[in-house]
Amino acid sequence: MSDDIKLKKDERIDDLQINNLKIIQNKNGFCFGIDSVLLSNFAKEIKNDSNVIDLGTGTGIIAILLTAKINAKNILGVELQSDVAEMANRSVILNNLENKVNILNEDIKKLDKVLRMGTYDAIVTNPPYIKLNTGATNINNTKFISRHELTCTLEDIAKVSSKLLNNYGEIYMVHRPDRLVDIVETFRKYKLEIKKIRFVYTDENSQSNLVLIKAVKNGKSFLKIEKPLYVYKEKNKYTDEILEMYNKK
Amino acid sequence: MSDDIKLKKDERIDDLQINNLKIIQNKNGFCFGIDSVLLSNFAKEIKNDSNVIDLGTGTGIIAILLTAKINAKNILGVELQSDVAEMANRSVILNNLENKVNILNEDIKKLDKVLRMGTYDAIVTNPPYIKLNTGATNINNTKFISRHELTCTLEDIAKVSSKLLNNYGEIYMVHRPDRLVDIVETFRKYKLEIKKIRFVYTDENSQSNLVLIKAVKNGKSFLKIEKPLYVYKEKNKYTDEILEMYNKK
Repeated sequence: MSDDIKLKKDERIDDLQINNLKIIQNKNGFCFGIDSVLLSNFAKEIKNDSNVIDLGTGTGIIAILLTAKINAKNILGVELQSDVAEMANRSVILNNLENKVNILNEDIKKLDKVLRMGTYDAIVTNPPYIKLNTGATNINNTKFISRHELTCTLEDIAKVSSKLLNNYGEIYMVHRPDRLVDIVETFRKYKLEIKKIRFVYTDENSQSNLVLIKAVKNGKSFLKIEKPLYVYKEKNKYTDEILEMYNKK
Repeated sequence: MSDDIKLKKDERIDDLQINNLKIIQNKNGFCFGIDSVLLSNFAKEIKNDSNVIDLGTGTGIIAILLTAKINAKNILGVELQSDVAEMANRSVILNNLENKVNILNEDIKKLDKVLRMGTYDAIVTNPPYIKLNTGATNINNTKFISRHELTCTLEDIAKVSSKLLNNYGEIYMVHRPDRLVDIVETFRKYKLEIKKIRFVYTDENSQSNLVLIKAVKNGKSFLKIEKPLYVYKEKNKYTDEILEMYNKK
């Protein structure tokens, strides 16, 4: 671990429980949840030596977790909010991952001005889930920006992903199942063919509350719905599959 | 049971194990499977006194099973193949359901010439699952017609359903999950908003092989993914939920 990492006010370091990785989070900001863990695990079939982009990396959690799951050439985390990007960058240094992970403070809608389009092998993204209503308040809050489609919509994600990816490049996304119809429609519009979906359920009696989606640019139409992923087997007790993701089994 | 029902060559009568219902099937034709049982159960929230259409009723299995699940005003089964429609009609008579179920031998693409559009409360359908390939053979076979999109495509179903249903009318469909992207796209095109999806899995370690879909004409965009439906709990042993559908629990 690098010694010169300084924490700012309200920040803390959390242990990621895998490969000794750590993350800096701001307790007033958006802290990572199980969706990041699920997505980095779902994306572990990304091929060796891939060039990977994490769109809307936030604290850098998915980019950093991915280093424990895949053998990428490079993982570039893109984050719009400068203070959040700066914090993510400190987490990269904290983990001595400067040779593997880079953080770019940029608007994903402007990536075609700074990156080479059509050259990336894989994209991972945990975008804002919630459609913006007209009555939105408190819109300067970093947490609000992370959760709502204020600065980045599903369409923005699909559009830029389709440009960034090479032919048959892959996108892995975690989202809310209630947006599935929007996701399917938007992805097809941008030639991102959904090939695999896995629904996540709190337990055996719940509706699904998260969905993991893999799509392939210009892929042929054929979809697999994978076996359900349950988080808990009983109250406060993770299933074996979740424990494995956390390296606790 | 009516006494004057005559079986034709290769036909047999099967017991539906619920409300003493029976069905005539031709052993060389398409015989009903668990998808019909699942769909009639999934559609049991159809409101009392509804006018219901079963598009592509085949042997009449879903229309007949529905009489045990809902309290419809009328259920109209539409079937293109005249010999199949005639057999379905004999099953209606066999069950003394002439006052509740009618069979119409018609092409679903021509229903706007014989039925009043915009007046139906609910549609149920178990359409052909398989997209037609260019190399199709044996296309005069009734079983082939039941399984492949030869005379009736997903788009035909969505188009006529949208016309037949009244505002906020409901469609319940069973289909294959690998067609989900096509289904979502086609339904939205015809203003059938998908509100509820339930994936069916052979067992806990399988991919999904059937999907149950409920959509509402002109419905607001919001989707629920219901808890998974498993068919078997172990080899040759149905889950409790399936046994309940078969009234065996």
